[in-house]
Amino acid sequence: MKKISFKDDYSEGAHPEILKTLSKTNLIQTIGYGEDEFSEKAKQLIKSKIGINNIDIHFVSGGTQANLIVISSLLKPHQSVIAVNTAHIEVHEAGAIEATGHKINTIETEDGKLTSGLIQEVVDYHTDEHMVKPKMVFISNSTEIGTVYTKKELTKLSEICKKNNLYLYIDGARSASALSSEKNDLTLKGISELTDIFYIGGTKNGALLGEAIVISNEKLKEDFRFYLKQKGALLAKGRLLGIQFLTLFKNNLYFELAERANHSAQKIAQALKNKGYNFLSQPQTNQLFPILPNKLITELHKKYEFYVWKKINETKSVVRIICSWATKKEDVDAFISDLK
Amino acid sequence: MKKISFKDDYSEGAHPEILKTLSKTNLIQTIGYGEDEFSEKAKQLIKSKIGINNIDIHFVSGGTQANLIVISSLLKPHQSVIAVNTAHIEVHEAGAIEATGHKINTIETEDGKLTSGLIQEVVDYHTDEHMVKPKMVFISNSTEIGTVYTKKELTKLSEICKKNNLYLYIDGARSASALSSEKNDLTLKGISELTDIFYIGGTKNGALLGEAIVISNEKLKEDFRFYLKQKGALLAKGRLLGIQFLTLFKNNLYFELAERANHSAQKIAQALKNKGYNFLSQPQTNQLFPILPNKLITELHKKYEFYVWKKINETKSVVRIICSWATKKEDVDAFISDLK
Amino acid sequence: MKKISFKDDYSEGAHPEILKTLSKTNLIQTIGYGEDEFSEKAKQLIKSKIGINNIDIHFVSGGTQANLIVISSLLKPHQSVIAVNTAHIEVHEAGAIEATGHKINTIETEDGKLTSGLIQEVVDYHTDEHMVKPKMVFISNSTEIGTVYTKKELTKLSEICKKNNLYLYIDGARSASALSSEKNDLTLKGISELTDIFYIGGTKNGALLGEAIVISNEKLKEDFRFYLKQKGALLAKGRLLGIQFLTLFKNNLYFELAERANHSAQKIAQALKNKGYNFLSQPQTNQLFPILPNKLITELHKKYEFYVWKKINETKSVVRIICSWATKKEDVDAFISDLK
Amino acid sequence: MKKISFKDDYSEGAHPEILKTLSKTNLIQTIGYGEDEFSEKAKQLIKSKIGINNIDIHFVSGGTQANLIVISSLLKPHQSVIAVNTAHIEVHEAGAIEATGHKINTIETEDGKLTSGLIQEVVDYHTDEHMVKPKMVFISNSTEIGTVYTKKELTKLSEICKKNNLYLYIDGARSASALSSEKNDLTLKGISELTDIFYIGGTKNGALLGEAIVISNEKLKEDFRFYLKQKGALLAKGRLLGIQFLTLFKNNLYFELAERANHSAQKIAQALKNKGYNFLSQPQTNQLFPILPNKLITELHKKYEFYVWKKINETKSVVRIICSWATKKEDVDAFISDLK
Repeated sequence: MKKISFKDDYSEGAHPEILKTLSKTNLIQTIGYGEDEFSEKAKQLIKSKIGINNIDIHFVSGGTQANLIVISSLLKPHQSVIAVNTAHIEVHEAGAIEATGHKINTIETEDGKLTSGLIQEVVDYHTDEHMVKPKMVFISNSTEIGTVYTKKELTKLSEICKKNNLYLYIDGARSASALSSEKNDLTLKGISELTDIFYIGGTKNGALLGEAIVISNEKLKEDFRFYLKQKGALLAKGRLLGIQFLTLFKNNLYFELAERANHSAQKIAQALKNKGYNFLSQPQTNQLFPILPNKLITELHKKYEFYVWKKINETKSVVRIICSWATKKEDVDAFISDLK
Repeated sequence: MKKISFKDDYSEGAHPEILKTLSKTNLIQTIGYGEDEFSEKAKQLIKSKIGINNIDIHFVSGGTQANLIVISSLLKPHQSVIAVNTAHIEVHEAGAIEATGHKINTIETEDGKLTSGLIQEVVDYHTDEHMVKPKMVFISNSTEIGTVYTKKELTKLSEICKKNNLYLYIDGARSASALSSEKNDLTLKGISELTDIFYIGGTKNGALLGEAIVISNEKLKEDFRFYLKQKGALLAKGRLLGIQFLTLFKNNLYFELAERANHSAQKIAQALKNKGYNFLSQPQTNQLFPILPNKLITELHKKYEFYVWKKINETKSVVRIICSWATKKEDVDAFISDLK
Repeated sequence: MKKISFKDDYSEGAHPEILKTLSKTNLIQTIGYGEDEFSEKAKQLIKSKIGINNIDIHFVSGGTQANLIVISSLLKPHQSVIAVNTAHIEVHEAGAIEATGHKINTIETEDGKLTSGLIQEVVDYHTDEHMVKPKMVFISNSTEIGTVYTKKELTKLSEICKKNNLYLYIDGARSASALSSEKNDLTLKGISELTDIFYIGGTKNGALLGEAIVISNEKLKEDFRFYLKQKGALLAKGRLLGIQFLTLFKNNLYFELAERANHSAQKIAQALKNKGYNFLSQPQTNQLFPILPNKLITELHKKYEFYVWKKINETKSVVRIICSWATKKEDVDAFISDLK
Repeated sequence: MKKISFKDDYSEGAHPEILKTLSKTNLIQTIGYGEDEFSEKAKQLIKSKIGINNIDIHFVSGGTQANLIVISSLLKPHQSVIAVNTAHIEVHEAGAIEATGHKINTIETEDGKLTSGLIQEVVDYHTDEHMVKPKMVFISNSTEIGTVYTKKELTKLSEICKKNNLYLYIDGARSASALSSEKNDLTLKGISELTDIFYIGGTKNGALLGEAIVISNEKLKEDFRFYLKQKGALLAKGRLLGIQFLTLFKNNLYFELAERANHSAQKIAQALKNKGYNFLSQPQTNQLFPILPNKLITELHKKYEFYVWKKINETKSVVRIICSWATKKEDVDAFISDLK
């Protein structure tokens, strides 16, 4: 019997509505490379959802691609990017950022989040031309360990960045889940205003693939399509990305899917809390990091797939449980009832 | 009224069979990043179609991505790649190859094809460490101007590469059209045996996106997935690529689509010949480069979209006409009847 | 018996005055990395010789290092540099520019010089984000084949660059010889005003090593020392470069040495003309490219070292003859008397 | 009055014997780019001093240049280098390594030294293609904080590298001081046998500039001059480097100079110990890191130049005191007598 997967939020295909729209529009001829009518409409729609018109939007295929394009196109050769030690760009992108020539200045944190104090420390440490020059702050929202930034926290980051002439960039692979979290008080508009550039994640929230890079800082808009092309990110059939975002942002589907994912995860989180289990980080989104007895992990692994994140001691480990828009209610219930 | 496009072979979406299979498999859970069952099956299927088992296959999203990954992963920092002056990597990839650190040694040709003599000349010119060291030959089949390599020609290229210790790499964005050309006497197996690495194009032959990189040279197989990841090419939902190639290579659909495209183009080519028009290059595939009077071009442009490729003189220009698997018979007929 | 070398202008060590100054200052303690008093004085001296104070000067070790630092620090990832096909950066720097990520757009010329028309053509050809974006023009003065730019020619280049928003950069490895040519009507001040950045060559005019990068364009000055450091160009004992330029620019030694080199070369050129020999390019500086019978070349090679540049036909070839500040009068006379 | 500098070991010019030899050989004509007779002799001499003939030697201008060339030429794009968090390549090379495309995996240590256990941990952590692949271990001997590796320690590092298929590379900017330390039991031969590649530092031990890269691993020798050229490291007058190493390695001058530097430093170290001061790291070479009261630091700074390395608490700081071959006995004595 095939196991039920709580491994990630990209185990299934796309939301059916996306496939339906792809089929419906399939034989309409368009021009290529993202200049088609669907992509244009999708951009207009996202702008209107954000509530700001003076922004540029570009669609790319995935998160690592978004990150390496954004960072390499914005930084000069001697400039670096500041990130937490658990950041996706630092650990899980096979050196993609360094491959474009840039150092990542990493900061150790407990909860996966940066603070203005930590950023200032890194900036102050870099005093002369023998060292790189930090020029960008990279954060993820939600973070790699499922936590979210509040409006107050992001505002402080924005301020420290402005003060130090740093760009603020958010990796929003799971922006849907973050913005749908009960802890969230940010909006797309707020994010757009507080950052220079960020991306809205599609792949992990119902798309086959696709992330929407949003550029607010006027200086960063120029020639961005050159960077897309040069890094192999301009799809000949760019419509594939446009149509998906058009579908996701029509009728609020994008946030409905995230709410569904969060709801499933939070139901499991509550069950785990009820059983007295602790968490590596606060369960705020569709990613949970409970600390479980190894025995229970072994037992659960017979029916469910999920990652063991980190060993705590000889008897306990942190595991990662992820729910998606496609997670079935009966699978959640089964998992909960299998907790001992 | 919307014009009929002969601009390219990626104006429409995917072959309907692909969309159907995507829908059918949509909610099946798989692991991510191209290690899913569909991708595995697709690789097996392609291997069996090629008729060689000892090859590695990797799916990526597009041609520029394929080219930059292949070239940057195979070459050491001081090594260069030889290509014709009209090569896609030289002209139309926004410096993607140089951005990974490598020079392209370009050679002027009339028909878009390299010969062993031209290659040897470049190799002989590079004699010491003050110059780059050519290490790879890049060709496209079909070429940028629609011509195809014969088995004899490719065999000679293969020999000169082996003699000079160069890798031979084929950009197969339009490999389907090339292999379905009436001038063709190559097979996937032959290509696989005569080259070190090549890719089978999907995007321009019925897929939403997707190219299949095929590695024959044992030395080039190691760690290839690292390069994919580092350049942002590992899709979280890698199944999207696997499912498409699975569909294309089941029941020969891949070659049927190319034959359809070629057939439409050749019908137009014949009509052009009948009218006495010449061509920039021999019309052998789904791309035509007829030389037309500017007056006729202006007239045709009222109903049809296509590129003006190059000015010949004050009264004539080369245009590019492309047909795809989705080109409608009535559009071909209309175009022909509009030729004067 | 050791042969007399006319191979290049870096066959000997430094002008004795340089070695003397190095010895005299040897045990004075200074701070490192080019911030020492000698380097500061040398910069002030060069500024006063140029007659412009509002410029930045940085010393590096060699021409390839200067070129790769200047180009990689000024260009964004998608931007390219325009150069003639015989340019040092295109042919003889082992792909140094591409290794920093940038394409060179090459232009074929007869006399090694660019013109505004040729530049405009390249700019006009690059129309969209599928291609690189030319942003810099690279020229050498004197050129790789010994010719020099006149003030009028450089002014036109400067204008076409300004019109197209391109940086103009001069590789001045042999700027001393160029500015001391009889054909020259440019000054360091003129060059400084007409370009954004250029370098004054030391290695090929009496220094052990060392080139002085001069930045006029305000926008290009920021953080330049970071680029020096990152590319390994900041010498711990930066004084070595400062002391040499201080010596060269005191009492006009720099131009005296070049005049001496040019004089020796022109004496040979005149003798060659008298014998009726033609040249690949006009003999204007310390580099000569006469076309000689192969028989004579063989004869001369018994006593002299020099490069055979290019075969003309079965009986004739172009050779390269170079004189330096250290070329001995008796060697010049001997060479001339050995011409048949 | 000018202060006496204990800031570094590159405050003065070259050992007078070097300047003398440069003068003596100055007008001899040689071929360029390091293929001259002096460079050849210097390489032979170093080989004989090492006692191994089957090694390749290349001269470069400085440490950052050596590091970036070695690392970028040896690693494939997805491979990384392991180093301590205080490593020169991590902190003080302005991102030079990342600029060539490679990540540095850093490890925190107290004494600036790596151990096999720490290396194995990093290797074990990197399990799949989502992460970089560690392929090289970088150490400095002496380290950035003045400590030296013993033969036993280096042997263990060599073993763990071989076991994990990692290259072992030593930055020997201060190899002279390390090998002349009282704690040292390594020889150039031993280092050569236990590593794949290392460099022998000249700049910080009596040369104007110059480091000698020594390659033992057969696989790493190929095409190395291409890398030198591409990174701007091939000096036209390569003799400048050859002559210096020829002088340094004739009659053991190289080690005499280091002994002199170490002796001066150890005399100060003993005086500091006598006064009861502690050290950040054991004083083993020409670099000292004593912990001094801020008051004393202020007092000393009136007459002496040296860096404050790190604040310990409100009243104490670590300072860095460096002696060189040129440090005067009277300056050492004065400094000691000024300690309170």
